[in-house]
Amino acid sequence: MITARRTVFFISDGTAITAETLGQSLLTQFNHILFEQITLPFIDTAAKAERAVNQINMEARQTGLPPIIFSTLINADIRSIIMKSQSKFFDLFEVFIDRLEQVLNVESSHTIGRYHSFVSNGIYDVRIDAVNYALGNDDGISTKNYDKADIIVVGVSRTGKTPTCLYLGMQFGIYAANYPLTEEDLFGRYDELPNVLIPFRKKLYGLTIKPERLHRIRSERRSQSRYASLHQCQLEIAAAETLFLSEHIPYINITTVSVEEIAATVLHECGLQRRVL
Amino acid sequence: MITARRTVFFISDGTAITAETLGQSLLTQFNHILFEQITLPFIDTAAKAERAVNQINMEARQTGLPPIIFSTLINADIRSIIMKSQSKFFDLFEVFIDRLEQVLNVESSHTIGRYHSFVSNGIYDVRIDAVNYALGNDDGISTKNYDKADIIVVGVSRTGKTPTCLYLGMQFGIYAANYPLTEEDLFGRYDELPNVLIPFRKKLYGLTIKPERLHRIRSERRSQSRYASLHQCQLEIAAAETLFLSEHIPYINITTVSVEEIAATVLHECGLQRRVL
Repeated sequence: MITARRTVFFISDGTAITAETLGQSLLTQFNHILFEQITLPFIDTAAKAERAVNQINMEARQTGLPPIIFSTLINADIRSIIMKSQSKFFDLFEVFIDRLEQVLNVESSHTIGRYHSFVSNGIYDVRIDAVNYALGNDDGISTKNYDKADIIVVGVSRTGKTPTCLYLGMQFGIYAANYPLTEEDLFGRYDELPNVLIPFRKKLYGLTIKPERLHRIRSERRSQSRYASLHQCQLEIAAAETLFLSEHIPYINITTVSVEEIAATVLHECGLQRRVL
Repeated sequence: MITARRTVFFISDGTAITAETLGQSLLTQFNHILFEQITLPFIDTAAKAERAVNQINMEARQTGLPPIIFSTLINADIRSIIMKSQSKFFDLFEVFIDRLEQVLNVESSHTIGRYHSFVSNGIYDVRIDAVNYALGNDDGISTKNYDKADIIVVGVSRTGKTPTCLYLGMQFGIYAANYPLTEEDLFGRYDELPNVLIPFRKKLYGLTIKPERLHRIRSERRSQSRYASLHQCQLEIAAAETLFLSEHIPYINITTVSVEEIAATVLHECGLQRRVL
């Protein structure tokens, strides 16, 4: 039940993704408040900061409450402009930088954080390369690059293989292929791995899901089909899980899990080294 | 020049993505220190916390320096176990929660942050749906769903359209299609939009890149081809930028920009509303 409303600003010299990520984690701890969220990225000049202050003060007047600001502003001049607004200012950065300087016994550079560029030296950033790898090795369309894979995600149709592989590439620079377990794989040669996967047994990771959920997802695509029927979903899931167990393939049930959690679990359980920062 | 080394742990009850995101932003402020980074996600029992403490203390002994810990642990019991380790503990969460409780005048729930599940009610999470949309409307393979697009990214081959669209979907739940500007589009009818894009003029956003970089990227794929030649890249880029200007299509040069920055810029300049939290 919502009992209050509050406006929140995420403000940064850069993309504001860091401010959003931590700020939103904090806000989830307050279930009964509806937060109106406004992101102001790239606030890197005094003029932009002044415009932001006007916007914040207008919110304060209209709502009768000072907005909450989550800031990762690095530039001290810009920060001091924003701090003059009618707001509750949460500095997600400076409070830690000061103590880190003490712990590390060096001064920080106070430069705006740089992400890896999209391209460098004409080569794609490793994350983009990993995303391209996931796209080129999606859904079993190609199996000849499996030696380059960090991991090969397996599961029946519509268990989230593609988004999981894309996320692993985008977030961690992990090269993830995926292979769909078809009826032929599951029922043709019971309890055995498809031939193409046998050399890569140690790279396999399984995804599974509750049959009822799979039934509903498949029905969105092809309702009334055998493919989407609850019975078919039950058969496929049972065969896939049997295969995972008999072949000692680690797996996760994704029914109530987010793509972030799937990816973090895979990374952790498989002991994969992320390639990004 | 690297002048020191330090071990850093990112510790969380959940995926640790928030701890990594803020922690790594902070670490980029200390260029001359090489940080050995270890992520410990899903530390949600006392037993796991004790094992983490052993690992931290072993690092402290081996390196002769207390590791830095960036924590988003919510459970107070688990946090107190970790805080007994030989470490410099940075609590990215509790310090803000306490002040937020004061500002909002309510107690926080102290529950572990939940991400959106992969599926709910049999329907994919909006982000997964948006990723599927990007995949189904990639590279002009289909143009019939453009009415559903929040944005249509346009640019010549190899300017980062696909990763940009996937990131917009994954991070923000934005429905992003992309359309490749071909030679026919660019040189067949000079300075005019392809017919299929005309009804969607207001949804268009352009990507461009320095011709020299494009030449190198394309050479990775098809070296010595006309497609990859510097001359061809110069012609295509010049024609694409002329089109963007004459048609008033906003655009960004991605040469030194990351995919996060591209996506945040698109979102900001186009005034798109993110669908995720």
